[in-house]
Amino acid sequence: MDERVREHAAVLVDWSARVEAGDDVVVAIGEGAHDLGVAVVEELGAIGANPVTTYSSAEVTRAYLRAHGGDVDAAPAHQLALYENADAVLMLRGSHNTTGAADVPPDIRHDWPTQTVRDALYSSDWVATLHPTRAHAQQASMAFEPYREFVYDTVLRDWEALADEMAQLKDLLDDGSEVRLVGEQTDLTMSIDGRLAVNSAASVAYDSHNLPSGEVFTAPTATEGEVTFDVPMTVEGTRVRDVRLAFEDGEVVDYSAAQGEATIGEVLDTDAGAGRLGELGVGMNRGVDRITDNILFDEKMGGTVHLALGRAYDACVPDGTGNDSAVHVDLITDLRESGRLSVDGETVLEDGRFRWED
Amino acid sequence: MDERVREHAAVLVDWSARVEAGDDVVVAIGEGAHDLGVAVVEELGAIGANPVTTYSSAEVTRAYLRAHGGDVDAAPAHQLALYENADAVLMLRGSHNTTGAADVPPDIRHDWPTQTVRDALYSSDWVATLHPTRAHAQQASMAFEPYREFVYDTVLRDWEALADEMAQLKDLLDDGSEVRLVGEQTDLTMSIDGRLAVNSAASVAYDSHNLPSGEVFTAPTATEGEVTFDVPMTVEGTRVRDVRLAFEDGEVVDYSAAQGEATIGEVLDTDAGAGRLGELGVGMNRGVDRITDNILFDEKMGGTVHLALGRAYDACVPDGTGNDSAVHVDLITDLRESGRLSVDGETVLEDGRFRWED
Repeated sequence: MDERVREHAAVLVDWSARVEAGDDVVVAIGEGAHDLGVAVVEELGAIGANPVTTYSSAEVTRAYLRAHGGDVDAAPAHQLALYENADAVLMLRGSHNTTGAADVPPDIRHDWPTQTVRDALYSSDWVATLHPTRAHAQQASMAFEPYREFVYDTVLRDWEALADEMAQLKDLLDDGSEVRLVGEQTDLTMSIDGRLAVNSAASVAYDSHNLPSGEVFTAPTATEGEVTFDVPMTVEGTRVRDVRLAFEDGEVVDYSAAQGEATIGEVLDTDAGAGRLGELGVGMNRGVDRITDNILFDEKMGGTVHLALGRAYDACVPDGTGNDSAVHVDLITDLRESGRLSVDGETVLEDGRFRWED
Repeated sequence: MDERVREHAAVLVDWSARVEAGDDVVVAIGEGAHDLGVAVVEELGAIGANPVTTYSSAEVTRAYLRAHGGDVDAAPAHQLALYENADAVLMLRGSHNTTGAADVPPDIRHDWPTQTVRDALYSSDWVATLHPTRAHAQQASMAFEPYREFVYDTVLRDWEALADEMAQLKDLLDDGSEVRLVGEQTDLTMSIDGRLAVNSAASVAYDSHNLPSGEVFTAPTATEGEVTFDVPMTVEGTRVRDVRLAFEDGEVVDYSAAQGEATIGEVLDTDAGAGRLGELGVGMNRGVDRITDNILFDEKMGGTVHLALGRAYDACVPDGTGNDSAVHVDLITDLRESGRLSVDGETVLEDGRFRWED
């Protein structure tokens, strides 16, 4: 086994999920994540934790949902009991075909596992990560070997040092009142007054549940102005490009896109909260140096900014008034060439460099 | 997907496990059983049952046990809760390397999942089956395509008709007092007085938990005489051949083997019950027409007889006095060329043919 797989497992178990002896852990192994699964279980054995290995596959999900037709049991007792009794859930993504469930009708696509089951899962110390497969390399339009290099560059970092660096941005956002984003066809202001930023350092100890992570995010309100998202994305299975949103009084009042405009319209039509921002995030993982069409990585790209339509994260909203919606759709703008993010008039990020990097 | 995979799934779910709408089902998918897993989950979806898919792999087990070193938690809450809340557990074996855990030290080999967890699992409507892989073909010394033919010949049978045929043998054994087995270097008598035979028709409705099955078995006592097992087997990872056992007063008093004699000695030394028989079984599945070095199939071969050293099955022992042991080691004698099994002096099986087949 590639030694990096073992290192990945050690970061996941020790840094990210903080697993301890006696912990009951669910290891959700993707159809292509066998090797990482073996390494993770080995790490859990060394610690003295108790793994249950589950199996995730888009083909399994597709077969179940298409045969069932939807309206699945909200809370199967065995599934709920598994997650309610788990201290941690480690999701090892790793697909053989990232479009393996593409023909499940949209109305039943998000029903399984149900919200009740997901709530139980998300009340554990859960962490999602990805084992590099050829299918994920293909989604990134990359060859397999360089894709593996890419993934491990993003995962095997000095997380302690990055957490310290990100703490500087968290402090600025926690203390600040207004964020302004200026760039190509972009001039947007948002209030962050009374909101808390999350230093997402790829560890449950930092309220962070992705490995890799490496972003600082908060929940903006009262958005005004316009923004262009120049990073191509896949939203709800559809390619979108050059999405432009115009805001007034915190709400989207106009939108367009060079590609996938209808999909953006559908997202905005979901519910009242879908037309407001739920997240302002700043990517700070310098291992993520290219777009790979996977939000787990893309939104953490060092020097980029992403905004999400829809649901805000509770951790950012101490007074509980965060934006609510069934959706949370991230869109990314790349400020690395030219652009600026400022807090209360002070430039924090310009042309892809943070002010403490000079 | 090969249509036989779907047929296999349907037999497993409908005939074997008798899954109904609303049932909570654990589908334990072996590392090489993906396709059968997809087909089974599809079948469960069509019925309206609720699957949780778990992942089984000798490499995962090996990694965990070697890293942990043994003395694992007896009852991890999440694992126990999963099985205690399951109506059925479908074990889809299918390995990429049947010796994938060969270097786990013997003293910790059987500790995981623990007996407590297995008890919870076995209190469900569990069924074990096998998806044909290249590794299992290799263990059978067969090419892959004919191995698949073999597996489906054993699984896709008219189970209703076989259950009716096997009921004749069950009646003979239930009513009988003494079984005599005569063959090459074999003349053995056993008491079956007061014991009940199981018509193992590959369905929980018949107290049968293997697919394929196709055997009738009971729990003999007071064994006298000698028996030679001419079918080569793998016992505790070791090849054994031409095992001979001599019994007096129900106990093994002498043993030898052309190959693997030491392993037989170790089995007999396990505990007091290991030197007594726990099972007399008669194979009646005519789809099993060759030995493939896998007890799931071998012991069901039509026209063969197997005896097991060690633990008796509760279902065979109404008064609860069945032989107890930590082991249950099956050994097979092939009566298809020459040999005879009789009940109270009446011949039931001779030269591989049952008396109702003439």
